[in-house]
Amino acid sequence: MKKKENKNGSRLKVIPLGGLEQIGLNITAFEYEDSIVVVDCGLAFPADDMLGIDLVIPDITYLKDNIEKVKGFVITHGHEDHIGALPYVLREINVPVYATKLTIALIENKLKEHNMTKSTKRKVVKFGQSINLGQFRIEFIKTNHSIVDASALAIYSPAGTVIHTGDFKVDYTPVFGDAIDLQRFAEIGKKGVLALMCDSTNAERPGFTQSEKTVGRTFDTLFEEHKNTRIFVATFASNVDRVRQIINTAHKFGRKVVVEGRSMVNVIETASALGYLSIPDRTLIDVERLKDYPPQQQVIITTGSQGESMAALSRMAGDMHKKITIGPGDTVIFSSNPIPGNEKAVTKVINELFRKGADVIFQDTHVSGHACQEEIKLIYTLVKPKYAIPVHGEYKHLRAQAKVAEGMGIDKENIFILSSGEVLELSEDSAGVTGKVPVGTILVDGLGVGDVGNVVLRDRQHLAEDGILIVVMALEKYSGQIVSGPDIVSRGFVYVRESDELMDEAREVVNTALQGCVDRGISDWGKLKSATKDSLSDYVWKKTKRRPMILPIIMEV
Amino acid sequence: MKKKENKNGSRLKVIPLGGLEQIGLNITAFEYEDSIVVVDCGLAFPADDMLGIDLVIPDITYLKDNIEKVKGFVITHGHEDHIGALPYVLREINVPVYATKLTIALIENKLKEHNMTKSTKRKVVKFGQSINLGQFRIEFIKTNHSIVDASALAIYSPAGTVIHTGDFKVDYTPVFGDAIDLQRFAEIGKKGVLALMCDSTNAERPGFTQSEKTVGRTFDTLFEEHKNTRIFVATFASNVDRVRQIINTAHKFGRKVVVEGRSMVNVIETASALGYLSIPDRTLIDVERLKDYPPQQQVIITTGSQGESMAALSRMAGDMHKKITIGPGDTVIFSSNPIPGNEKAVTKVINELFRKGADVIFQDTHVSGHACQEEIKLIYTLVKPKYAIPVHGEYKHLRAQAKVAEGMGIDKENIFILSSGEVLELSEDSAGVTGKVPVGTILVDGLGVGDVGNVVLRDRQHLAEDGILIVVMALEKYSGQIVSGPDIVSRGFVYVRESDELMDEAREVVNTALQGCVDRGISDWGKLKSATKDSLSDYVWKKTKRRPMILPIIMEV
Repeated sequence: MKKKENKNGSRLKVIPLGGLEQIGLNITAFEYEDSIVVVDCGLAFPADDMLGIDLVIPDITYLKDNIEKVKGFVITHGHEDHIGALPYVLREINVPVYATKLTIALIENKLKEHNMTKSTKRKVVKFGQSINLGQFRIEFIKTNHSIVDASALAIYSPAGTVIHTGDFKVDYTPVFGDAIDLQRFAEIGKKGVLALMCDSTNAERPGFTQSEKTVGRTFDTLFEEHKNTRIFVATFASNVDRVRQIINTAHKFGRKVVVEGRSMVNVIETASALGYLSIPDRTLIDVERLKDYPPQQQVIITTGSQGESMAALSRMAGDMHKKITIGPGDTVIFSSNPIPGNEKAVTKVINELFRKGADVIFQDTHVSGHACQEEIKLIYTLVKPKYAIPVHGEYKHLRAQAKVAEGMGIDKENIFILSSGEVLELSEDSAGVTGKVPVGTILVDGLGVGDVGNVVLRDRQHLAEDGILIVVMALEKYSGQIVSGPDIVSRGFVYVRESDELMDEAREVVNTALQGCVDRGISDWGKLKSATKDSLSDYVWKKTKRRPMILPIIMEV
Repeated sequence: MKKKENKNGSRLKVIPLGGLEQIGLNITAFEYEDSIVVVDCGLAFPADDMLGIDLVIPDITYLKDNIEKVKGFVITHGHEDHIGALPYVLREINVPVYATKLTIALIENKLKEHNMTKSTKRKVVKFGQSINLGQFRIEFIKTNHSIVDASALAIYSPAGTVIHTGDFKVDYTPVFGDAIDLQRFAEIGKKGVLALMCDSTNAERPGFTQSEKTVGRTFDTLFEEHKNTRIFVATFASNVDRVRQIINTAHKFGRKVVVEGRSMVNVIETASALGYLSIPDRTLIDVERLKDYPPQQQVIITTGSQGESMAALSRMAGDMHKKITIGPGDTVIFSSNPIPGNEKAVTKVINELFRKGADVIFQDTHVSGHACQEEIKLIYTLVKPKYAIPVHGEYKHLRAQAKVAEGMGIDKENIFILSSGEVLELSEDSAGVTGKVPVGTILVDGLGVGDVGNVVLRDRQHLAEDGILIVVMALEKYSGQIVSGPDIVSRGFVYVRESDELMDEAREVVNTALQGCVDRGISDWGKLKSATKDSLSDYVWKKTKRRPMILPIIMEV
């Protein structure tokens, strides 16, 4: 197709609304005149200091402020960091969602949970197909990734074409479906591409990411070596190809397969219904029928490869699973690497399994879903973009890709490591950051979206660190006399039964401080509270070197 | 020396009192008839769920119960996981401490902080020297490790000899002092060794750990490559040899060196005073004089290689350091690997440094201080023990060493993977676990030792997760009438100013529940509290899917 003429000379705006400061929260707006399309709408998992938070979604104030421009969401693939915020965001910006078949199906699973299937328009797009959204045309291009149906996007605008790789790797021998459509990347590249936004996750790693098929060969070898034991394989719930390979190997060795873990069962059902996972007859069995087969004819595929304490694997290892217990003679294969931050949790489960007498295999049983440096170079060589915008990664990953891009001959000033919220304006002639839009993270805790912010988090951190001391007292309404208390109640501070003396003295200290106020004729509640806080805080610090939260409560009677 | 005759046929008891379930907390009692010697006395850093805890020390009830037998502490080296609990334990069991020169000096630094130098007997032991402790004789044997003056121990008892390697590696070309005394291991082995207790930290890794000297060569190369920038090197405070090599390379390249971080300054001062670290004249300068030299003549050695937020490196990266700021053009070398659990914190600092424009180097700039499989095999071959007791590691590490030992021809039933508290009885004829002594962990929080236990931790976890709702009310003493309240105060639950409605309704719910009690003539405080808790908890769960701690407080007026 011939490039549209850019009559008005407007520039294309690329505005990442999240995802460039951390893993997760991927969402990027593309704006040209009166049209905005949004690529991906992911969640992030809470950082360690976000106590009690379930998940994190992006602040989409910019989209709400420009709601009449927003034409739709275009989703690259079905991982949580790309689709997880949709149910929250669509409530505020109800526009159509476009994606490939499995991705739409996984989004629908989410919408069902939130009772939103009726209110949301969605459309399945095939690879090679384009959709028109305002001034944009978006083409879906087949890639490979650790989930089926992953897509790159060619985003055509009057100001030029941007290629967004989504999360990808180059797998010449995928387990299911075709290899990445490198020809199409080349074809579009030949016609001229303004900017390439390429996955940076593995940009620090030299070489190529191995084909998913190599894991299948590893399974064959491991099953051969462990013919006489029951085999457990833990992996990511959404990696349909991995599950397919485990099932195929199990079938080859005459074993029956049970799948444990709700999220995995869901993905498998969805993928099977769409024809993405064909399972040999009579291979998959119900957990109830496991007892009909000897251990060496059993395979259990399970969630929990990241050491999640509530996942099936941890529960089976800890004798907390209703139907399956792992013990001596069992072989457990971790077909996964720990995601950064999960190392300790994974090690904990591995130790537990060893202690139970199981054999644990956790090396060379996984391949990444992301491109390494040689694959990134390949894409740059096919696409030959004018501008490079590394995406998907922490700063060090983005920077590693910038270095690769520089090595590929992209001018240093044409490489943009953006921060979330920055507005990058692009045209054939020039490019530059021209502004900043509001961005941020919204915390989801239970049903609450955004009702836990910095104040509440700071309180939780304070409470977590040293607990709380509550000082209650009752004042007579007219005289201002203390008619009851002060009483001190503590939680999370010390074991009270063994700290009588400390608590008695603390009460005495507060009493003295309050008496001092009374003697000076002070009856202002604020001042009484300050006196309580200061005296108790000093005393507790001196005695324990701790700083519990101190909360004076005055009642009027 | 000839072996003592074991007249009474008593057996040697080996009782690990910590260190076998986690990294840290190393302490093992050796008992023969009326004599106990204790090897090491380390602390552990708190697990993620030990909110607010500063450090963890071992429960030494067994030693207290047998205090008349305890002859002394014998310490293998000066790392925190081997000496850190001494100031706490010596308060309860005041016996002499024996160790090599630097180790004793580091222990003395600790005793000074705790005002215990006068009350503690300690004795410096040289390599090759033995000390007699009751029925035991202990010989110190030179090894190599990531701290100077590390020692293995030959523990001679009438029942036979045990060799405890301490933490070690085999470094044929150490930076300072001699290589590990392999001849002595062989000599003792030749005479017959009952049991080998060998470091398991790297037992999963094949091959050899590289010599410390290789890091020095890497520094030479890196300094050559970064001749025109200021260089920062972050490493472990206690690794004197590493610091020595950085200083030597700096001197070679005509740079001045500043050391930042209190713990590192302390170790360097101590090591220098003992003659373990000779620094070329006029190389080390005060931070105030840094400005007199151009960046390319500066090297800053710093703590914070584990991403500790309060360490010098993090403060310099975050513009929170009073005297030094890291910025564009600076080169930062991480001469360390992240300790498991610290990966995310380290990555955060690396990202911050990149973002500041610094160049960060964090690969191939560190070697481990622990032996890999080939070194472990070497020690087994020299010592030829009858029994193998893998130590120092998580279960998976102990198990990996057990496999190595089996491969070396040790009978499977002669290999003991112990749990803390198990009593292993050994003699030439037989060995086996014969009992269990009380063990556990004592939590230190500020000045409090052991006053935070499971109840307090559970409260802190609860508070951290969803905060607290406090319901206060005042009852009239004689009538039992509610004369004030119920009032609800929350912390760490929701942002109250934006949740008026929720809080108002909550108050109404409690009011109704209490009124119900009153109507039914219930005035029992326990029942009123239950009614408050139940009604509020149900309401809050329904509205928010959260479970804050609910604390009803009744005052009598």
